[in-house]
Amino acid sequence: MSTQRSYTSDLDLLKGKVEMVHGSGGKAMAQLIDQLFLQAFSNPYLDQLNDQASFNLPPGKVVMATDSHVISPLFFPGGDIGALSVHGTVNDVAMSGAVPKHLSAGFILEEGFPLADLKRIVDSMAAAAEEAGVSIVTGDTKVVERGKGDGCFINTTGIGVVPDGIELGGDRVKPGDKIIVSGSLGDHGVAIMSLRENLTFETTIESDSQSLHDLVATMVEAVPELHCLRDPTRGGISATLNEIAQQAGAGMQIYEEAILVKPQVKAACEFLGLDPLFVANEGKLVAFCPADKAEHLVEVMRSHPKGAEAAIIGEVTEDSLNFVQMQTAFGGNRMVDWINGEQLPRIC
Amino acid sequence: MSTQRSYTSDLDLLKGKVEMVHGSGGKAMAQLIDQLFLQAFSNPYLDQLNDQASFNLPPGKVVMATDSHVISPLFFPGGDIGALSVHGTVNDVAMSGAVPKHLSAGFILEEGFPLADLKRIVDSMAAAAEEAGVSIVTGDTKVVERGKGDGCFINTTGIGVVPDGIELGGDRVKPGDKIIVSGSLGDHGVAIMSLRENLTFETTIESDSQSLHDLVATMVEAVPELHCLRDPTRGGISATLNEIAQQAGAGMQIYEEAILVKPQVKAACEFLGLDPLFVANEGKLVAFCPADKAEHLVEVMRSHPKGAEAAIIGEVTEDSLNFVQMQTAFGGNRMVDWINGEQLPRIC
Repeated sequence: MSTQRSYTSDLDLLKGKVEMVHGSGGKAMAQLIDQLFLQAFSNPYLDQLNDQASFNLPPGKVVMATDSHVISPLFFPGGDIGALSVHGTVNDVAMSGAVPKHLSAGFILEEGFPLADLKRIVDSMAAAAEEAGVSIVTGDTKVVERGKGDGCFINTTGIGVVPDGIELGGDRVKPGDKIIVSGSLGDHGVAIMSLRENLTFETTIESDSQSLHDLVATMVEAVPELHCLRDPTRGGISATLNEIAQQAGAGMQIYEEAILVKPQVKAACEFLGLDPLFVANEGKLVAFCPADKAEHLVEVMRSHPKGAEAAIIGEVTEDSLNFVQMQTAFGGNRMVDWINGEQLPRIC
Repeated sequence: MSTQRSYTSDLDLLKGKVEMVHGSGGKAMAQLIDQLFLQAFSNPYLDQLNDQASFNLPPGKVVMATDSHVISPLFFPGGDIGALSVHGTVNDVAMSGAVPKHLSAGFILEEGFPLADLKRIVDSMAAAAEEAGVSIVTGDTKVVERGKGDGCFINTTGIGVVPDGIELGGDRVKPGDKIIVSGSLGDHGVAIMSLRENLTFETTIESDSQSLHDLVATMVEAVPELHCLRDPTRGGISATLNEIAQQAGAGMQIYEEAILVKPQVKAACEFLGLDPLFVANEGKLVAFCPADKAEHLVEVMRSHPKGAEAAIIGEVTEDSLNFVQMQTAFGGNRMVDWINGEQLPRIC
């Protein structure tokens, strides 16, 4: 830490609250930055205390992704808004095949938010960033009056660099491609909804919130011919498949029996009236892969802890209407349309 | 626009409102993206509709800056949150000497926010981005329930590339450097406060909100030996000078008579009990320049419309206590300390 600034008293991280003055650009804001953010995130870029970070990047295509996080509640089984805000953006960067490098963090805090909660969130972000191999290089803090926010919103924006020879995108997906999912579906959304609805099950349903940078690195190294990766967050795998079908100008056929949903997630979905295909995930990916490489890719994914339950769940079809269809466990075929109504608000 | 997605009816941009479903990852969100954001921001990176943008950057040091904008009210004389969110981040990137290249945009919308207002904001962002020569390459939209936000918050994160041979930073500032300001101080903060307090003057006080990328490019080309640039936003020039004094391990001496404050801004400040040195600016910069290049730099700045009123306002001094002092119009010297209390909440 390069900072030498001195304050008359330390920030009260036990009982203190966020005040309007913490966003006003004066000494109180500087203290919040020094004693909370810099303590947790310290790295050579951030510690320069300029209004921007500067760094060199390895040669290659640069990738940029942004996500504002407004999840409610802020703390949940398997994670919190801090870790989630790192995982979400790291994953968006990684889905291009890129190695995530740096994150920015923008906080919008509500007056009265406990500093102890903020510290917990910030420490969780720092740990998630370290695990994902990214530095939080620049940041910003704003404070809004009580009733004009909801505790803590966090925007993270990430940049990364794509290794030579990798080119992924929805428009590269072709009829015949196999659709592979890295694990069970619906965990994150159901964990949050169960918490909101005060549902208890024999075992607590945990969010799958995690960074997939290392799984992706393993996959693109093994099968650089991969066509597309996408993380099925808001809107679940249904939104992802419909989006890609339209980008690719193709259809999708998936098989219900091939899709892994944990028994307690299935039970909670039935209770809550949710369809696991529409429920957000925060630590899973969908891969679109040329058919002749698909088995090998699944094998490679299964050798990685974050892809241990990877499976082929269907294939891309010729379909000018870009329909996504699912063969059900009973043998019928049903449309998997986009959700039209609100299913899960503030899930990330 | 590459999108071919079809909807049963168009978004009602006259009377429609933001609904929770616009943030849920389904069809309504896709429609908002297609018919509002893509229409305004269209560029080859964004139009790929991936969850991240990818692009090549020219060689050189990469710079990243982030800002969340929570200004209230959203529309004000001389600008709005849309243009401001571009200017703020473009300026943070430019203050490193970099050429700003790309922006991300993250929206946090409150349920019930008029789509017509959102369109006005988005169109204003698009125009500001075009003027600044940047593309909005990736984005994100979240919606929170009524009473959990305040209409519209916007995070922008920008990246740019520093031309060869330029290296700016607070730690490069040296005793003897001249302190140069690009124009009048206090316009933005006073415009917002006058609006909030319903003050009217003979002439409307307008925000100075503008991108300084072109002024900066002119400056670093003419005087690459420049030590540091900073835009005096929240906390005003007082916060900027105190921050840099601490980064440089030096003091600052400024001269009240050299500092330009417009008469109506001065009058409003007296009425509102504000000190123009503590009031936010959104289109001005402070430069720290070796003394032997300072006159030339001021001349160069004055040749540019955004620096027409540039002036030397003081110099960096040897001072281990890092005090910022101002010689007043009456000849005395007073401390220019950081603000400790809240002066202007939600000014950007």
